[in-house]
This record gives sequence, structure tokens and C-alpha cells, in this order.
Amino acid sequence: MAAPAARPDAMRRHNLALILAQVHRDGALTRAELTARLGLSRSTIGALVTDLVELGLVEESVPSGGTRAGRPSHLVGPSLSGPYVVAVDVDVTQVTLAAIGLGGELRARQAIVLDAAPTPEQAAALIVESIPTLVQAAGLSGTPVSIGVSVPGTVDRHTGTVGFAPNLAWRDAKFGTILADLAAPHVPVLIGNDADLAVLAEHSRGTAREHSDVVFLIGRIGVGAGIIVNGVPLRGNHGHAGEIGHNVVDPGGPDCHCGKRGCLETFVGDHALLDLAGRPLTGADQETEKVFAAARTGDERALEAVRTVAASLGQALGLLVNTLNPELIVLGGSFAGVLAIARENIEAALDRYVFNSPGEQVVLSEPSLGEDSALIGAAEIAFAQLIADPLGGRALAAR
Amino acid sequence: MAAPAARPDAMRRHNLALILAQVHRDGALTRAELTARLGLSRSTIGALVTDLVELGLVEESVPSGGTRAGRPSHLVGPSLSGPYVVAVDVDVTQVTLAAIGLGGELRARQAIVLDAAPTPEQAAALIVESIPTLVQAAGLSGTPVSIGVSVPGTVDRHTGTVGFAPNLAWRDAKFGTILADLAAPHVPVLIGNDADLAVLAEHSRGTAREHSDVVFLIGRIGVGAGIIVNGVPLRGNHGHAGEIGHNVVDPGGPDCHCGKRGCLETFVGDHALLDLAGRPLTGADQETEKVFAAARTGDERALEAVRTVAASLGQALGLLVNTLNPELIVLGGSFAGVLAIARENIEAALDRYVFNSPGEQVVLSEPSLGEDSALIGAAEIAFAQLIADPLGGRALAAR
Repeated sequence: MAAPAARPDAMRRHNLALILAQVHRDGALTRAELTARLGLSRSTIGALVTDLVELGLVEESVPSGGTRAGRPSHLVGPSLSGPYVVAVDVDVTQVTLAAIGLGGELRARQAIVLDAAPTPEQAAALIVESIPTLVQAAGLSGTPVSIGVSVPGTVDRHTGTVGFAPNLAWRDAKFGTILADLAAPHVPVLIGNDADLAVLAEHSRGTAREHSDVVFLIGRIGVGAGIIVNGVPLRGNHGHAGEIGHNVVDPGGPDCHCGKRGCLETFVGDHALLDLAGRPLTGADQETEKVFAAARTGDERALEAVRTVAASLGQALGLLVNTLNPELIVLGGSFAGVLAIARENIEAALDRYVFNSPGEQVVLSEPSLGEDSALIGAAEIAFAQLIADPLGGRALAAR
Repeated sequence: MAAPAARPDAMRRHNLALILAQVHRDGALTRAELTARLGLSRSTIGALVTDLVELGLVEESVPSGGTRAGRPSHLVGPSLSGPYVVAVDVDVTQVTLAAIGLGGELRARQAIVLDAAPTPEQAAALIVESIPTLVQAAGLSGTPVSIGVSVPGTVDRHTGTVGFAPNLAWRDAKFGTILADLAAPHVPVLIGNDADLAVLAEHSRGTAREHSDVVFLIGRIGVGAGIIVNGVPLRGNHGHAGEIGHNVVDPGGPDCHCGKRGCLETFVGDHALLDLAGRPLTGADQETEKVFAAARTGDERALEAVRTVAASLGQALGLLVNTLNPELIVLGGSFAGVLAIARENIEAALDRYVFNSPGEQVVLSEPSLGEDSALIGAAEIAFAQLIADPLGGRALAAR
């Protein structure tokens, strides 16, 4: 089906959502900027902003200073006393929580290191127990608009069920329901895949902002891709797009724990890097950091390990480029470290495996949100419903 | 950027385009159906249809018969005397042309067998020389709205330049410009990749109609994929998405003419099938058909060749499913024959290489437009501008 037909009442809701989306994404904008961006009259913008102020979603201020004659254009920014969400990044050895306001403002952040991978029930209990402290640290009150959670596995975004998260050992875990049952009543819970949320965040407010075709490839113990196509997330039919860690890249390669041989993960996952560098496979994040530190100081074995992973990574990127032809590939997790040290090895392998005409290049970049890409992405899905319909179920006020 | 803000004059143009798109895609619809589908009033639909009739794009008729009381709802269908496009499928050994009207109505079709792959200049001359006969055979007159051409290679859709079509031996060929210079003045020329156009056609009016995440994998001498994501074509940054024929699936595999080893094409392309079956590599289309015919009558060598290709094809589909998680994969060209004979071998390999949770299945299907998928897709891109803006540069008539 094409876009729906336009009607006047739908126009007002639509335009309210457009303004809130602009302010959420870009921060404070002048009324004049909003007028220019949306192609609406100054008086229409004024009325819509008044609606959003009354809803407690935006605040207006008059910029100080200024030397031009005439009335200065009011600044419209996210309300500092407005709604917030709780964003969570569940990983194998750490759970990170944050309270985040409109505009992506991180108001408080808390990281909890774990001894072992949590069960879904343990993760849900830990999140719910941690929220009061987090909210207090942020100087906030009331309940969050919703809770958004990143997990390293496949997710059914409609039900919040985690289909398979191999390194958490979760399978068909009704995590969204478990968490919603423990959380405050009427607080929606949204669950997303880590790579999907990471690319969403980098696309909304990170290094991929101006790009419409992007891959975020995340390297941890497992490997996954988050993909943006035509400016929109590629989720696929069951929400499992980008699960490329167990793509077989060499049928003669090493045995994989999944039962196949030569999966991508066996060439570029954290354990492959640690094994090549002769490091223990426990505490992967700290150990991979030691490999990168050693490589930077010229340690031959560490450097060779990073370069070997870089070459395999470049080959994998070649296959992704042939399939998706992205403009930008963001390399996150341990791949950011590999990129910083061995970009030339990645690019040489990529050139060899890409079909495209010579001279066409994809840009490789580190994430600009650092380790927080997936966390910020969890906040984005938690805010999405409010941004799409700032009025919610409320009727339009009379004008 | 989000969708643009809505304004009244833009609404009328938008709604005209919506109606034309419905009629182009689905054929004749009653005014009542249009009213229900678009959520507009009956009088608004009536006025918009009158505009489209005046533009010569649709025709109204009163259905005969009917036993219900009351005035019957007028049928709104594509105008039979309305605009047409010329669609062309350029392949290595054949050029196929068709005159196609709104609604995808094929009015005349002509296939020209070639002795050798044409140069861009030869292909353009052949097309332009063939158009008058084609138009006459269709009982049409005047110039086409535009010319849409399918080629088996990478295409820059903005310039119409073919970056690389290995089996035509075209590289950086300004084919769109060459053809536009030869064609009648002011007739736009649109060029597309064969797999991209094939998936567009199957999505618009074929087996993929009700699906939003689709891959069309075409097997000829080369191999390519056309991809639909979120209901929209995935083209990528340079329009080269889906160029997976030279993805290395086994670094220890056979040498490929591209200089690498173990490309997908060396396992599943027409030459791989013919080689396994002990057939000559010339006249690939006819020879692959002979392999399928022999396999269907129980010839062991032919059957084994088809099953071997089927297993490699299933593995390749596994990688695509992990990356894109489509709902439907359409197998065209020689892959349609492989599917008809060895579906179980494809599916067994696919199951083995897919990461998804058990029980989730992608549907494998033959194209419902047969060999004409790419040709019909070429007509779709040729009509796209008219469908998007039925008024073109014309002003809105007063109401």
C-alpha cells in the first residue's frame, strides 16, 4: 500500500509529531528554523509549539544577546522537566542502565558488573531493582515513559521474546513479558537486538546521521550487524536481519560451537582474536583491550593477531558490501580497536572481495557514541511511540 | 528527515497519485473501492477521478448487469487509449521488447535473438530500430512516455551508466545517454539492473505482491539478487546492492574468471550446472533446459548435477536469510528449474545454514511472471514518474 490519504485532523497530529521529532533529534531549534524546515507558516508553527508546551514535551526560551534588530526568534527545545525513559544494555558480563530525556540527554548512568551471564529472570529483577537509585541519581521523579532494553540476540519486537541469544544461553525467553510483569504498572517495555539498536543510535545522533545506507558491525564474543536501508532499519520478517555471525565464510575453517565449521565468528569474534594473541578466553573485554594495548606498543604477536582478524573482517565486509552496498560501515565493540590499529589490512581485504567498479569506496568509521551506541538506541525505541504521536490517546485541543 | 509537512495543494497532487497508483497496480476498481481504500469522501474521489479522466490516464465505465437496487458504482480503470511505455530486457543472447500500458497491460512483445553479446551502441540501435514495428503491432501511435531497460549489470540509476556487466563485457558504459541520444526527443530513458527490476515486478504484480521483505535471486550465466526491504527496493549507495555472484563462499573452491576463487557463480551459475552435467557451455539457456528435461526423466548424471547445484544454492540462501531475513525468496532464471526438481535439496541446505530459531521458514517460490519479470520491471520504472505525479509540470485545474 502507498501512503495514506491526507486529511486535516491527521495533518495536525502529523505536524506535531514532525516538530517533536526535529527537536528530539537535533535539540533546541528556533521557531524560524522550524518554519523553514517544515514549510509551514510562522503562525502555524507557533500554534503547534504551544500545543507541545502544554503537553510538557518542549520548552521555549528567548536567546540572550544578539545584535540584530527586531524580535529574536524563540528557541524551542526538549523540556528539561519532561518525560524520560530507562534504557538498558544487557551484555554477558555487564548490565548498563541510563535515565535519558527527550533530545537523548543522558541524565544518569549506572553499570553493574556480573559474575556470570544472567538468566532472563535475573536480568529483569536486576533492572527493576536498579531503577529507583537511577531515577534518584538523575534528580527525576515519577515513572519512566517506558523501558527500552538491548540484548545480544534475536528479538521479536512485537512480543519482546528473545529467540536466541547464544552467549547469554537464552532461547525463546519471554523477556519482555517477564520484565513488564516486574516493572511499574502501565510502563511499556521495548526489547531490541544490540546491533540493531546501535545502528539506530548512530543513525539518529551519531556518526551515521547524514547517511541512509549504513551497516553497524559489532564484534564481541559474538558478531552481529545492524542495518539501515533507505534511511529505515532493516529488521526482516522475524526481526532477525543481520545475524551474520554464523554465516559460513570458509567450509574448511575451524569448528564452531554452533555445530558448523568456518563461521564468521570463528575468524573475527573476540575469542578468535584472543586465541591468535595467546591470551586467556575469559573476561573478553579486558583481555581484548590488552591485545590492542600490546599491538600499539609494537608487540609482534599481538599486532599479527589484530592484522589477521582485520583481513578476515575485510573479507566479511566485502560480502556485506556486495549484498547491501552501504555508504558507511560503523565498526563497534572490539572491531573499533581492530580498525584503529589495522585499517589498511581491513581495506586491502575489502578491496579484494568487493565486486563494485574501481574507485567506489565505502567509508569505515568507529562509532561516535563509543560503547553507548546500543544503550542510546534502547532509549530511541523507548521514546518512539511518544515521538510518533505526541498526543497519545488525547483529543486535539480546540483552536 | 521525516516526511514533509502536509499542505492543501500538495494533498490534491498526492491524492491524484494515490488513485493512479491503485489503478495501475490493481486494474479497474469501483469508486466505492477507491473511497474505502483511501479514506476520502465519495465526492472527493469523484472530483479526483474526473481530473484523471481529463488527463487521459483513466477511463470510467458502468458495470453491466447487477441485481442490487440503487445506482451502481462506476468502474475506474487504466485508459486503453492512454500512455504506454517501451520496456526492454537486454540479455547476453537476446533482446526482448514490449509496449506496455498503464495497469501493466502488455500490448505487444518482440524477442530478437543475437549471435553475440551486443555492444552498448549495438543494443541502443537495435532498440530504437525496433520500436516503430513494436508500436505498430500494438496498434498504438505517438511516442512512448519513456523507455525502460533491464541490463545484467550494475547501474547508476541517476545517469543510466552501466558500471560493470561482466557477461556483456560492458564497463562504465554510458548506455542511458547513448540510447537517449538515438531515441525520439524528450523521451526519458530509465536503466535498471535485471534482478532489481525482476523483484520490483514480482512485488508490484507477481508472487511477491503481499510481501514486504523479498529477495529475487536470478540464475543465468551470472548470478544476482534483487532485494525489497520494508516494501521498498534496496538499491544501496551506488545502486549495486545484490551483486552477490562474486561473493566467495569457499576460499578453496574453483577458480573464477573474476580472479578470485570459490565465487558463488562457480557453484550455482549456468556454467557450473552444465559442467556438472557434462554439457557444452555455449547457448546456456537451451542447454540448461536440456539438463532439466533429462533430470525429470530420471537421467542420473543430470539429476545429480541439479541436486549438487541445489545444495550450493541452499547454502547461499542461508547466508542471505541470515543477513536479510526475508519472508519470501523468488528463484528465477535457471534457479526456477532447480527449484522445481530439487526443492528438498535446497531446503535441507538452507536449514543447515540458517541461524534463526527452529520452525521459522522462508518461502521459496518460482516467479509468477515467468521469464518476463525483468521486462515488466522495466515498464514499472518507465511509468514511475507519471504515477508519482500524474499532473507532471501542469498546474492544478480550478475546482
